[in-house]
Amino acid sequence: MTNIKLVIAYDGTNYHGWQSQANAVTVQDTLVSAIYRGIGEKPILIGSGRTDAGVHAIAQVANFHSESDVPPDKMKYVINAYLPNDIHVMDSSQVPDDFHAQFSAVRKEYMYKILNAPDPSVFHTNYAYWVGRRLSFEDMACACKDFLGEHDFSAFCATGSKVTDFTRRIFRSELEKDGDFIIYTVQGSGFLYNMVRIIIGTLIEIGMGKIPKDAIPSIIKGKDRRKAGRTAPPQGLYLKNVYYE
Amino acid sequence: MTNIKLVIAYDGTNYHGWQSQANAVTVQDTLVSAIYRGIGEKPILIGSGRTDAGVHAIAQVANFHSESDVPPDKMKYVINAYLPNDIHVMDSSQVPDDFHAQFSAVRKEYMYKILNAPDPSVFHTNYAYWVGRRLSFEDMACACKDFLGEHDFSAFCATGSKVTDFTRRIFRSELEKDGDFIIYTVQGSGFLYNMVRIIIGTLIEIGMGKIPKDAIPSIIKGKDRRKAGRTAPPQGLYLKNVYYE
Repeated sequence: MTNIKLVIAYDGTNYHGWQSQANAVTVQDTLVSAIYRGIGEKPILIGSGRTDAGVHAIAQVANFHSESDVPPDKMKYVINAYLPNDIHVMDSSQVPDDFHAQFSAVRKEYMYKILNAPDPSVFHTNYAYWVGRRLSFEDMACACKDFLGEHDFSAFCATGSKVTDFTRRIFRSELEKDGDFIIYTVQGSGFLYNMVRIIIGTLIEIGMGKIPKDAIPSIIKGKDRRKAGRTAPPQGLYLKNVYYE
Repeated sequence: MTNIKLVIAYDGTNYHGWQSQANAVTVQDTLVSAIYRGIGEKPILIGSGRTDAGVHAIAQVANFHSESDVPPDKMKYVINAYLPNDIHVMDSSQVPDDFHAQFSAVRKEYMYKILNAPDPSVFHTNYAYWVGRRLSFEDMACACKDFLGEHDFSAFCATGSKVTDFTRRIFRSELEKDGDFIIYTVQGSGFLYNMVRIIIGTLIEIGMGKIPKDAIPSIIKGKDRRKAGRTAPPQGLYLKNVYYE
């Protein structure tokens, strides 16, 4: 058995997220079908984590064990041959037997795209979150630094989550401007459910002046979801990188 | 009666082109419905010209005569309220009575996006033409200058066209690189059917070395469609500007 690692890009617009579901089209199911058609095996495909409906991936990572004699680095061509245009295997390689896309991951990086312009863009409806009201980039860029470090992020987790440990470490939290786009990049040891989208919703309310720009430390400390901003929509979110040791 | 000019952006992916059709969803029909719902008039909406299925517009221009008392510059909000996310009126204004979006146009500008990378991008399937084989940007950039000036472009017109005068003047013909994208911008007095897409198909074959880089003048002179390259697909094409006096 060979352990195969895949690096996958997908446009999440037309999928009900990553995770396999009985009555909906998901990225995981579509990949499993393509692998089955490509090499005749129906693998247990382990993803680094779920992504919600409408969320995109620039480099999701998954692995599966295979007895196929297709060389690991050629596997991408065989699978891509059976994938629709909105899912693409960027790379395939052999990894040690104990590599597990979810449990071996040590860091993840997400990107979130905001379009801050008076008019929406017909070309970015599914690829960025349009905010028509002018945002203070400076206040948001300054505030986003307060997420750095190790914190209990209960206030930035969707209610109803089943996790018990809300502590995560944030290694990178940066905002940059690219024309009318505001792009947020965040790297962390892991992320709670909806965490990045709640961070963005909070930063946007800071950019509008609804939440004070120095409020993040006290929102984190308060551990109260209601004190953070609203959950920003999925279409601006991209899983950008998954890091392994 | 007030003559209203609209500047319209649209993502052409889900439309059977601009022009009204009996059994298909088109951009023109969708706009006419939105105007009807917004101001209660079913106008004769004149576009600057057709765009094919899958072709996009950054700034298509159209006009219609109206008796509505909605101020011309506010008309965009009323219409946008009834448009889907992939069509957006960027601007509305009053123009002289004799302004005609098609006949008053003196120049048009198109853009064409090529993605030249080993792997396709899941995010650009409908927004650029992916060419996996490495293209010589230099040869293409050099060759594209030969389209400048006034020529009979019969060789760059889809066969079966009903026009009789194939002469057009090209004012601008430029290729630029933006990361893995090659972006072509062309401005002319007018364009024949499929002309930009055939120009691109020809430039791509020059970039691959299949057509010599100095062949454009003789292809133009030969007036033979078969000597030019293949018609590039619609999704890379954007109507960028329409100019009036």
